[in-house]
Amino acid sequence: MNVLYVMPGEVRRGPLGAAEIDRRRGLLQGWAATGTAVDVIDAPGGPPSIESQIEEATCVPPMLAALEAHAGPVDAVIVGCFGDPGLAAVRELRDEPVVGPFEASLHLAAQLGHRVGVVTVRHRLIPVLDGLVRVMGQEAIYAGAAAVDIGVLGLHGAGATLVAQLASASAPLLSGRRRADTLVLGCMSLSFLEVDRSLSRELGVPVVNPARAALAAAETMVRLGMRQSRTAYPPYDRSRPVVPATNVQGVADA
Amino acid sequence: MNVLYVMPGEVRRGPLGAAEIDRRRGLLQGWAATGTAVDVIDAPGGPPSIESQIEEATCVPPMLAALEAHAGPVDAVIVGCFGDPGLAAVRELRDEPVVGPFEASLHLAAQLGHRVGVVTVRHRLIPVLDGLVRVMGQEAIYAGAAAVDIGVLGLHGAGATLVAQLASASAPLLSGRRRADTLVLGCMSLSFLEVDRSLSRELGVPVVNPARAALAAAETMVRLGMRQSRTAYPPYDRSRPVVPATNVQGVADA
Amino acid sequence: MNVLYVMPGEVRRGPLGAAEIDRRRGLLQGWAATGTAVDVIDAPGGPPSIESQIEEATCVPPMLAALEAHAGPVDAVIVGCFGDPGLAAVRELRDEPVVGPFEASLHLAAQLGHRVGVVTVRHRLIPVLDGLVRVMGQEAIYAGAAAVDIGVLGLHGAGATLVAQLASASAPLLSGRRRADTLVLGCMSLSFLEVDRSLSRELGVPVVNPARAALAAAETMVRLGMRQSRTAYPPYDRSRPVVPATNVQGVADA
Amino acid sequence: MNVLYVMPGEVRRGPLGAAEIDRRRGLLQGWAATGTAVDVIDAPGGPPSIESQIEEATCVPPMLAALEAHAGPVDAVIVGCFGDPGLAAVRELRDEPVVGPFEASLHLAAQLGHRVGVVTVRHRLIPVLDGLVRVMGQEAIYAGAAAVDIGVLGLHGAGATLVAQLASASAPLLSGRRRADTLVLGCMSLSFLEVDRSLSRELGVPVVNPARAALAAAETMVRLGMRQSRTAYPPYDRSRPVVPATNVQGVADA
Amino acid sequence: MNVLYVMPGEVRRGPLGAAEIDRRRGLLQGWAATGTAVDVIDAPGGPPSIESQIEEATCVPPMLAALEAHAGPVDAVIVGCFGDPGLAAVRELRDEPVVGPFEASLHLAAQLGHRVGVVTVRHRLIPVLDGLVRVMGQEAIYAGAAAVDIGVLGLHGAGATLVAQLASASAPLLSGRRRADTLVLGCMSLSFLEVDRSLSRELGVPVVNPARAALAAAETMVRLGMRQSRTAYPPYDRSRPVVPATNVQGVADA
Amino acid sequence: MNVLYVMPGEVRRGPLGAAEIDRRRGLLQGWAATGTAVDVIDAPGGPPSIESQIEEATCVPPMLAALEAHAGPVDAVIVGCFGDPGLAAVRELRDEPVVGPFEASLHLAAQLGHRVGVVTVRHRLIPVLDGLVRVMGQEAIYAGAAAVDIGVLGLHGAGATLVAQLASASAPLLSGRRRADTLVLGCMSLSFLEVDRSLSRELGVPVVNPARAALAAAETMVRLGMRQSRTAYPPYDRSRPVVPATNVQGVADA
Repeated sequence: MNVLYVMPGEVRRGPLGAAEIDRRRGLLQGWAATGTAVDVIDAPGGPPSIESQIEEATCVPPMLAALEAHAGPVDAVIVGCFGDPGLAAVRELRDEPVVGPFEASLHLAAQLGHRVGVVTVRHRLIPVLDGLVRVMGQEAIYAGAAAVDIGVLGLHGAGATLVAQLASASAPLLSGRRRADTLVLGCMSLSFLEVDRSLSRELGVPVVNPARAALAAAETMVRLGMRQSRTAYPPYDRSRPVVPATNVQGVADA
Repeated sequence: MNVLYVMPGEVRRGPLGAAEIDRRRGLLQGWAATGTAVDVIDAPGGPPSIESQIEEATCVPPMLAALEAHAGPVDAVIVGCFGDPGLAAVRELRDEPVVGPFEASLHLAAQLGHRVGVVTVRHRLIPVLDGLVRVMGQEAIYAGAAAVDIGVLGLHGAGATLVAQLASASAPLLSGRRRADTLVLGCMSLSFLEVDRSLSRELGVPVVNPARAALAAAETMVRLGMRQSRTAYPPYDRSRPVVPATNVQGVADA
Repeated sequence: MNVLYVMPGEVRRGPLGAAEIDRRRGLLQGWAATGTAVDVIDAPGGPPSIESQIEEATCVPPMLAALEAHAGPVDAVIVGCFGDPGLAAVRELRDEPVVGPFEASLHLAAQLGHRVGVVTVRHRLIPVLDGLVRVMGQEAIYAGAAAVDIGVLGLHGAGATLVAQLASASAPLLSGRRRADTLVLGCMSLSFLEVDRSLSRELGVPVVNPARAALAAAETMVRLGMRQSRTAYPPYDRSRPVVPATNVQGVADA
Repeated sequence: MNVLYVMPGEVRRGPLGAAEIDRRRGLLQGWAATGTAVDVIDAPGGPPSIESQIEEATCVPPMLAALEAHAGPVDAVIVGCFGDPGLAAVRELRDEPVVGPFEASLHLAAQLGHRVGVVTVRHRLIPVLDGLVRVMGQEAIYAGAAAVDIGVLGLHGAGATLVAQLASASAPLLSGRRRADTLVLGCMSLSFLEVDRSLSRELGVPVVNPARAALAAAETMVRLGMRQSRTAYPPYDRSRPVVPATNVQGVADA
Repeated sequence: MNVLYVMPGEVRRGPLGAAEIDRRRGLLQGWAATGTAVDVIDAPGGPPSIESQIEEATCVPPMLAALEAHAGPVDAVIVGCFGDPGLAAVRELRDEPVVGPFEASLHLAAQLGHRVGVVTVRHRLIPVLDGLVRVMGQEAIYAGAAAVDIGVLGLHGAGATLVAQLASASAPLLSGRRRADTLVLGCMSLSFLEVDRSLSRELGVPVVNPARAALAAAETMVRLGMRQSRTAYPPYDRSRPVVPATNVQGVADA
Repeated sequence: MNVLYVMPGEVRRGPLGAAEIDRRRGLLQGWAATGTAVDVIDAPGGPPSIESQIEEATCVPPMLAALEAHAGPVDAVIVGCFGDPGLAAVRELRDEPVVGPFEASLHLAAQLGHRVGVVTVRHRLIPVLDGLVRVMGQEAIYAGAAAVDIGVLGLHGAGATLVAQLASASAPLLSGRRRADTLVLGCMSLSFLEVDRSLSRELGVPVVNPARAALAAAETMVRLGMRQSRTAYPPYDRSRPVVPATNVQGVADA
């Protein structure tokens, strides 16, 4: 099966460059089941990283355009950003199953414990995650989110102290009224830095890697022959442009 | 005070043309309090109407660009689409209070009754509205949404039967377990067709016009000197582009 | 338009005397929009201040009697006590829109942030406020209440330290699991001492003044031609006495 | 033990007269455990029956006054009206345990089934009951309320058809999404007409009689030596008048 | 009336021996109302104490077998373990009302305050209690649970320091966001050590003794002629074995 | 990897006999990924089928005993009954990940739509499923359950009409207020009759097969190296017997 992992940012022009796309493709391919081929693309025109509500929004049309432009067989799509930006839109767009890493992680974590916490990068994203949890109807099992205050691009340079910083930020989620017994890494960069196992050892609770959770969910859906409900996500009316041609000019005007 | 009402679609290229922008500006100005000047702009590059999750997403960057491009004094911004697309993003972007018509309507309706229903245009938008209600934390007072199945652009031709169609679609919301005692018009076109009063007479419950509710909320915030919490919506880091220049090229590639 | 603000306590016999009624009338009139005339009345027979569940209850019949006795044009009524005592009863009684300051404040605050806290005067009122939030169906956005332990009448003598006391009491609402990003002053005396702006500066979050929020809500309802749903609040059957004549004698017996 | 059942209406001046007070005292005494003496008083100045939000409010001060005026030993107090008017106020006022019939019924019913419905007299009271359920935090087990549209005083003349009318009104609560498996009689007059058993036989589900449930709860609390939490309901500050003397005059002024 | 209190563990083979059965019978009989005879049985084959999810499960078939084997009149059954193991199963099995101590305690506590906390023995049981609260639909009034880390059998040797240990463990439940104003002893051994009154004096909030609460609930149901809803708990089809004969052999095989 | 699927009933002595165990092993093996070996065992002493709360309880100790008796490598355990009986107990018992089919199905379905319905065999199991949903904290996405009234063993003879019966029973879940957009087969026999695809075609919504969902979840957990949180499910203290020896004799006594 062919799984397409689309990064809504324009990674190739970011500080990590196109090499990061290849690195992530390699990791995903290594995690995949026998018979799964993973491709990774980024989204020209998207922001270099997604660390605000504005970027959660501006990354979506480039991602849709990148998906429209992609040739080759696709059996499942993964929205390659933890905030699941544009997830519902991609589900309208595509006939294949579409997976969001936050959604997949939360539903995996829910099968490992009673209360799920998230450790992410930026404090400002916590209300965004809280809102996503509410949209998913998962507030009852959500222990809240915590943040190390490091930007996405900066994580890659954090080195050996990163796990300790994550552990320290997560600790309040594990006690008192919140009492998370399971954690989710709240950022794809954390996924691809593979800190889940060491953080889990440090804290003594399962830590879900959202890239791996999303890949497994995609593989499951393809193997079971399932995809999004068309009552929940009716197919897009293709007589309407997905990304209007006039759009480009309009943005250019700005 | 100056209230800027930004339509995230590119209305001027739609079937109703630029005249509709002027018509709406006129209605809003007529509804405004003494001392309020309302301006209405549309968003070049946005879809002609917003009737899907894809369009809820693709309209946001053009709306942000239109706001960035707008010159002249602004004391409050209204996101001129009932699904409040990009509301959080605009709150990051702007220092003035930013109002969403759905949010403003729901909170006004909540002060008139116990359970609020929404009557909208497309069935496919009902899950979108349900999700917004969850994000807003308003599920406890939400009686659900109903839809006439008429497109936004078609509403303008519905003529005299429109109110009867809305009443018929809304009736199930008013009885049984849902038991709405207050309704909200779930589409800005319905707002500007001013069907709220006749629908209210027909059904015997208050019907909130979201354009008027949003305008009143904007005026209230300005008069009280209030705007969005900077803890909830931290200001955008202007060293990062709001709508990346590379974005245009990226979309053009598609 | 004429807005009637009814204080359910008998302020004229309290320590601040009738002058306080005039002072509040002046402040409200100053906050009102052009064209709004505000009148303020108190409720003979009501308690001097409302700081218990008993006083929340005993103030209502005198307020209803004061409303029945009031002559002159009325376009909207504001229940002038933060706990919104008798709000539903007044909505049955009157044909004009009726506004509760707590309700109006919570719904305004909900449009400024994600989680709303309340800072009030007495600890013993916190469960009352919690119960009101549940009745309103607003628990999902409620971060809880905190109290300075100063009585209503004592606030007027608190002087320059009042804002610091309020800030100190509110601080726990802004952090940890509660994480309020918006506050409401939980007492009308705090409203009319106008501490909202200075407390907002102190804490860095919006602080809603409930008297101003209620006035703005009343003005909005009148301008939009809206009032309480008659399904939610059926009109009172006037063949039954509002405040039974025998009532007076009965209380005297006690 | 001595249980005081206080009717917040002025029953003696109503159509059923003082005889109804005696009739209810007799029934309660018959239901009581060995060693329990029940007294029933009404509240001079209260409304003849409680069928609106206004009467839910105006009955409370006369009830408080009647309690203050009552001489003789009291081990527990029952608020003798299904809407539990003034329950929190009486809990502040008294040192003995105070029971509300709706609260007691709901918590008994919750131990007999999964979902509890209420059948009451007036449609207009359904939102009141819904609100009480929210205050009690019992929405998760509440299947909603239904009403025969008969006034409290009229029930006594309904005769043999009353059970059939109640059964017919209740039926929708037992099916579909609501699916009540246990019912509560939503009115004290229904309690004292003893229709619970015949309605239970008719519908095949347990039907709780709120007067009996309240009496049993009061007896339980006394026997276990328990009363309301003083954190939840702090004792009233007796330096403040319960029912202000000025109140009487004030109401007379109106 | 005859109340049967069945202990799902095999107490007679535990460290306290059969004398503990007699001791508990004596306490229950002393707490009972005039006319109530209490019998206490244990469940041969059950675990010596119930301190894990495994023991919550393995105790149920022995309890069902003990109930099937019991001769003599029974008017109500109490499941004698705080986690209410097998409560629904016993309700299917028996025609008499069946009471669970946790359920009875929570519903009694709910009538004494707004927010109920539980103090239990083992930390590992807290998620079990949390889950029971969710099944009961009582999350809205639940302030959470705390634990002293002493095993059930060890409590009996704790002596004079037990109340202080319970008070210290409970203290965090009474403050901050949890703010319990009423407590429940979360273990039957605590019930029969009668620490409720001294803990209540220590903490200043009501403390419910679950054995006494369950007994009072059983007596109430019998006196009111009520039992579990047969819609909620349909009677067991007796053509199917309650505890399969093959079961015994099967377990022996293992 | 080795996945052990344990049926908590004693299938070999039921009407379908040991052949059914082999048939299910064959189907599971056919659904498994490359490299997964599935073994299926039943539980001697368990009931022949699980169609009541009593059987949900009596099946657990035999299942625990069967697991204890099982030799051979195990990487994950699936509790082979839709009601997930004893799921928490097995999670305490085992070091490998333990999967419940209902839990796995609900969390898969949640990634395909917004609202999940369940179609099961017996009406009497609907409250059991409702309770499980509450324990899982998934009420917000749960559209309720419906039942064809056919016993588990009878399903195998239903033949060609089974899908039509399921579709007819499910239809009310898909409309009105419930509005399920995704379904789960609520019984393992339905899983192994493979009606999911034909029911999905009939109804136009995704239908999750719980056996396949559970198997995929088990494979995912093993591949990701994850298992239940030890904070949520502390390991069982092996100094205490899992199924007490006295238990067997005790049940024999009964």
